Amino acid sequence: MNIGAFTYEEFIDKVKSFHGSIAPGIVAGGIMVNIARANLPQGEFFDVICETGHCLPDAVQLLTPCTIGNRWLKIVDTSRYALTFFNKYTGDGIRVFLDARKLKDWPAIRAWFLKEKPKRDQDQQEIIDEFRMAGTSIYSTEKVRVKPSYITSSKQKRSSISLCPSCGEAYRADLGETCPACRGKGPYIGKGK
Amino acid sequence: MNIGAFTYEEFIDKVKSFHGSIAPGIVAGGIMVNIARANLPQGEFFDVICETGHCLPDAVQLLTPCTIGNRWLKIVDTSRYALTFFNKYTGDGIRVFLDARKLKDWPAIRAWFLKEKPKRDQDQQEIIDEFRMAGTSIYSTEKVRVKPSYITSSKQKRSSISLCPSCGEAYRADLGETCPACRGKGPYIGKGK
Repeated sequence: MNIGAFTYEEFIDKVKSFHGSIAPGIVAGGIMVNIARANLPQGEFFDVICETGHCLPDAVQLLTPCTIGNRWLKIVDTSRYALTFFNKYTGDGIRVFLDARKLKDWPAIRAWFLKEKPKRDQDQQEIIDEFRMAGTSIYSTEKVRVKPSYITSSKQKRSSISLCPSCGEAYRADLGETCPACRGKGPYIGKGK
Repeated sequence: MNIGAFTYEEFIDKVKSFHGSIAPGIVAGGIMVNIARANLPQGEFFDVICETGHCLPDAVQLLTPCTIGNRWLKIVDTSRYALTFFNKYTGDGIRVFLDARKLKDWPAIRAWFLKEKPKRDQDQQEIIDEFRMAGTSIYSTEKVRVKPSYITSSKQKRSSISLCPSCGEAYRADLGETCPACRGKGPYIGKGK
């Protein structure tokens, strides 16, 4: 089994170096990326949505040109283990999800996915081996159309920049008269953070 | 100038291959990661917050063990060009930001950062050259403490998993009686998506 342009073993090495560990979810994610690609017209430009921030986005970042920082990958957290590749102009896409109804023959995957056992009682290597053996058989796909807010419009205009009168830093002017952090929406403890 | 473990040229190659283009913001981001690291106790485990989803997260993902998928990198969007490295147990950290008050001598960076000119009138290479020449002189740092919700607690318990009675997919049980997508919070057009 190849994962994208890599052999399975090369992909595992990539995962280890980028993600820090060989998480079973990324192995699944690699196969899900394969399935999505196989269902898309060749050569088409696509954006990706991951429906969870756990593991799955790293498979996408390793295997496609889409990253969080270039904005071609977005996370819309529904907590479902699913990803969608879609045409960034029309919004038409293919959604791939790990299908809980197809796990009957895969006890290790099932225990991991549905958290049937505490993590300490799960054997990581066994889960990964099952993912490899199960191949594409445990996923389902469906055609979807994404909401207009995720579609790239040629009319999109980026907001102008202001200096926040409170912290002095540059921020998007359309967000308000001070920056979000100075209105208490920042991640820090303390005044205006 | 080195960026992390790379020479400047190696870093530029990495950016091109991961992010798809040599965006000036990632070059700045690389220097910001250098500054954050230099201000942290050596060998300390840290998490990272980026205050924007544009470019900056990709510099962090290329240069640190922190990725979106392993959850050591989080985006808290205040739209400010800033990142924070913090101790994941105490919340104490160092925040690094591109300082609009220090750009007097750098017209290309200024035009890019404050959007003083339309993108088509900006010279990408000139901006990148200015970032290289400016080195660390155009950033500021401050000590911060992040809010408790970003701190790793040893008591953290992951929610159990349910099968959504509407779509049949696995989701985090604590999110409600059906999954968020089936309550209209998904990214797709159509019933229960």
